[in-house]
Order: sequence, then C-alpha cells, then structure tokens
Amino acid sequence: MKREKSRPWRRVVALSGGVGGARLLHGLSRALPEGALTAVVNTGDDFEHWGLHIAPDLDTVMYTLADLAPFDGGERGWGLAVESFEALAMMRRYGAEDWFSHGDRDLATHLARTRALRAGGSLTDVTARLAGALGVRTRILPMSDAPCPTLVETDRGTLPFQQWFVRHRCPPVRAIRFDGAAPPTAHVLRALDEAELVVIGPSNPYVSIDPILRLSGVREAVARRPVVAVSPLVGGKAVKGPLAEMIPLLAGEPPSTAALGRHYRGLLGGLVVERGDEAGLPLPALATSTVMRSRDDSRRLAGELLDFAATLP
Amino acid sequence: MKREKSRPWRRVVALSGGVGGARLLHGLSRALPEGALTAVVNTGDDFEHWGLHIAPDLDTVMYTLADLAPFDGGERGWGLAVESFEALAMMRRYGAEDWFSHGDRDLATHLARTRALRAGGSLTDVTARLAGALGVRTRILPMSDAPCPTLVETDRGTLPFQQWFVRHRCPPVRAIRFDGAAPPTAHVLRALDEAELVVIGPSNPYVSIDPILRLSGVREAVARRPVVAVSPLVGGKAVKGPLAEMIPLLAGEPPSTAALGRHYRGLLGGLVVERGDEAGLPLPALATSTVMRSRDDSRRLAGELLDFAATLP
Repeated sequence: MKREKSRPWRRVVALSGGVGGARLLHGLSRALPEGALTAVVNTGDDFEHWGLHIAPDLDTVMYTLADLAPFDGGERGWGLAVESFEALAMMRRYGAEDWFSHGDRDLATHLARTRALRAGGSLTDVTARLAGALGVRTRILPMSDAPCPTLVETDRGTLPFQQWFVRHRCPPVRAIRFDGAAPPTAHVLRALDEAELVVIGPSNPYVSIDPILRLSGVREAVARRPVVAVSPLVGGKAVKGPLAEMIPLLAGEPPSTAALGRHYRGLLGGLVVERGDEAGLPLPALATSTVMRSRDDSRRLAGELLDFAATLP
Repeated sequence: MKREKSRPWRRVVALSGGVGGARLLHGLSRALPEGALTAVVNTGDDFEHWGLHIAPDLDTVMYTLADLAPFDGGERGWGLAVESFEALAMMRRYGAEDWFSHGDRDLATHLARTRALRAGGSLTDVTARLAGALGVRTRILPMSDAPCPTLVETDRGTLPFQQWFVRHRCPPVRAIRFDGAAPPTAHVLRALDEAELVVIGPSNPYVSIDPILRLSGVREAVARRPVVAVSPLVGGKAVKGPLAEMIPLLAGEPPSTAALGRHYRGLLGGLVVERGDEAGLPLPALATSTVMRSRDDSRRLAGELLDFAATLP
C-alpha cells in the first residue's frame, strides 16, 4: 500500500478484544488524526449477570480510551483504575454469585447500559452514548447488536466464555463454538469497506478476533483491505491469558508467531511481532517491542505499526 | 386488654413507614420475645429507578433491624450507616437521573431485590430472603405484593411519592391519592387477625400509614384489635418530614396530637405522645419522651408502650 509517511491515515479500523487490543487502540488513537480510528470490538464475551448486560471487551476498550483503565500495571488489568467493591460485598451477603467482580463504578456502566438497552437502544447507540459521556472520541463499534455468544467446549462441558474464562479459570479447550447466526452491524461492514487499513490487535485470535471474523461478511470484508496484525505472543508465551495453552490444543502445534500467521492465513499483509519472534514467518514482519506497559509504549508501537503498514505492497 | 406486665406478648403487629417506624420496630424487637413481632411496612413509596425496584420503607426497616442503619444521628437518617457513592458519581457522568441517592451497598439491595422479583419471587418472599441474609429475625411483611403507588396532588400536578418527597422536596399538598386496587397480602391479614396488639408507628399518617390502612380489609382488621399509636409530632412539629405542614392542608386544623387522634378515630385504644402533648386528647394517652435518637431510646419507648397497652381496657 506504498504510502508516504507524511501523509496521514484517514480511515483505520482496528479489531479488538480486551486489554491488549484496547491498549493498542489507545496508541492508535494518539498516533492517528482525530476521527480516523474506528474500533470494532468483540461482544462474544457479553453475558447477563445480576440481571445486567455486561460487555467486558467494550468496557475495557471504553475505559482504556477514556484513560480510566489501570494502564501502567498494578494488580488488576481489567476494570477501572480507581475502583471500590462495596456493592459486591453486600451482594455476597445476599448470596449472589460473586465470581465476576463488579466494581461500584463499573456497576454504573452495566446499569446505564442495561437501562438504555431495555429502553430500546441498540448496543451500537448505547456504546456511543456511554463512551461519549466519558469523553472518548474514537468511534467504538460493537461487532454486532445481537447476542452472539462464544462457547468453549471443555472436559467439563460447553461453557459460555465468561464462565470458562473467569469462573472456571480457563480449563483446557477442545473447541470454540459460536452460537447463533447474528449479523455484524451495517456500521461495522461500512467501516471495513471504507478502511485504508485494518489492524488486528494483540488479542486472542480464537476467542477475541475469530468471533468478529466469523460474522457473516466480515472475514471477506477484512480480506479485501490491507491488514496488519500484532502478535499477542512473546517468545511463545501469551502476554496475558491462556492463548499459549490453547494453540497446541486447537492448532496441533506449539505456540509461535508462525502458528499465529497460519491461523490468519489469507488475511494478513504483515505481522508485528516481538523482537526474536520473526524467524520462519512466511509474511512481512516488523520485529519490535510489542508489550504495552504504558501509554508511551502503546503510542510508540502504534506509530511503528502504521509506518510498517505504509511500506507494505 | 388488661394484661399482667409479667406475661409476655406473643403476637404484636406494628405498622410502619420509614425511619420513625423502623426505630420503634427496633425497640419492639428487643422488648418482645423472639418471634412475637411482625412489621407490616408501607410500599406505597416503591418505585422504579435506574431500572431497579426500590422499596424505601422496606429498606429502612430492614437496615434498621439489621443494625446497619445510621441510628444515632449523623447527617443521613436513611440508608446504610457505612456507605459510599461511587456508582452514583459514575451514573452522573452517564447523565442518569441522580435525584435519588443510591449508595453502593444500598444499590446491591436494589439489584438483589430486582433480580429476585424478575425471577418470579413475590415481594414478601424476596423481603424475607434479603432480611434473613442480613440476620434480621423480626418478620418484615410488605403491605402488598402488588404495586400500590401513593400519589401526591400538588400545584405542580400529581406526583408519585418519591418524586414529591425526594425530588421536589415536598411542595404543598392538596390531596393524597392511592392508585389502583391492590390487595394486602394474605400474610398481612392473617398477622392482623392473630395480633394481640397492633402498634401504629410514629410515621406520617397520610403517606406512610394510610397507604396500609386503605388496602381492602386492613382498616377493618386493625379496628378489631387493640391498637396503640405513637405520635410522630412533638409540640406540633414533626420529628422528621413534612407532616406539620400537611395537617393544616389536609385536615384543616393546626398540627397537634389531637388532630392525629381525630385522624385515626375509630381505631385507637391509646396514644403515646410527647410529654406536654397530651392536653385535650379524647382517648387514653401515655405522655413520655418519644424521640428516638438511640437504640436505648427506642428500647425504652417500646417497653413503655407495651406496658401502657397492657393497662388499656
């Protein structure tokens, strides 16, 4: 896509799961002109809890872009940096399920979203309203307005994503299944059609990115655009989450960026990987430092990614 | 009802609104043998807010009996003594209505109640479950399992109770109206039928007690039992709330315990009033200190009330 570095990107779409994708989005939002970036976010993890509509990846993306997420470390990667858990403690007294830790401020997001959805708003509209209220200027699009749950098949049976991920702490996976035939939103398809570049964030390909790609028409729309992915692996280990354990089970090979490249075959124009992980990749790669521990890390990585994308054919 | 002081009461029903009634209930629960007291609580104030079922008087009674309410003063009379307001602050950012101040722990009560009601539980069952979880041993009965909203007619139009009381801070009242024809629960009618004594707490007669009495069959059931009320007035002023302003508007006479006695005419066997407020009462009265600023105040008042009731014919 040979592009002068000095010419700014005007339309970039980034596919994202939770923390890793959200941090890359933060960097991209600073590296790109205002209005250029659209985030398309996995909602396969969405679920109902305490009678509320929870959208974990949308929340992580929104909080991160609003500079409310715990970016620079600390013990929690998810949720809000400043948070308390008084409602949760009281819910425990009432015997409510407490395996999903709602913070008090986070709870307000779930309440506000649930009310707005019950009042008839689409998830796309409600997300725009909540993110706008928090001062986010990047457009955040849920992949779909309809429920499209990701199901994880394990020895313990088939679990909805959050049950598998949070409640049961990622027991070994036999297969990933996607329930129903929900369509992507028209906003998502239009954004992809208009994109000069699609970025696949350093999210888990099986449970964060595939849920987006599997929606009717999305993979084809992505494949028509220049695509660069950022690897979520560093030296064969996942920066966060159970990806390294999932690759052998689902792809039948050791975890590596080469395996990741094969997973996305037919889609990628280039792959951004950790320095040292570029060996044996069958496609153009940028080897750099990919771990985003700070806003500056993510800004630098985003800039390098955009420059790399501009050099691709 | 001539009763030896040494013989314990076995079945006492107390009608209650919010703070005043709840504090008397606390005293009665300590003065009576375990299992003897049943609270019948006004639900005319119940409303939906943030998509949650809020029952202000049930909550005040439950928190007070669970020793979680701010009993001994402080700036708040309602809610939980130890409370934070993080979710509320976040809801403000989302532009949610914030005239009703949900605390974070209080919010858990609303969430737990709302979920249990949506799952098909009756308000009676749900109240028993929540109160039980907080260690309350007194039986708390909502007056009805169906919505029976109290409406306040004012110069600004007809307002649901909480809108009038909290949001608009009690503009002058033209009339009180009760919506619909909800029945009391069978539990309430049975408790009244079996009661050796009915206590009317020091709650606002128009908007806390009348909503209970107006339910089909309740006034008649109460009238068949010995009844003692505690006046919510001290020297013609209300201990809390807008009662003193309401009496001239609704009864056409100055606020006084005599006016209160006339309001409950046909029901009362005796009235407990503040010392000095007993003049001109047309029924047996106990003059004592009625303001409950502490658990000891309420325990003493409850004991005096029970002894007084035992002397009534």
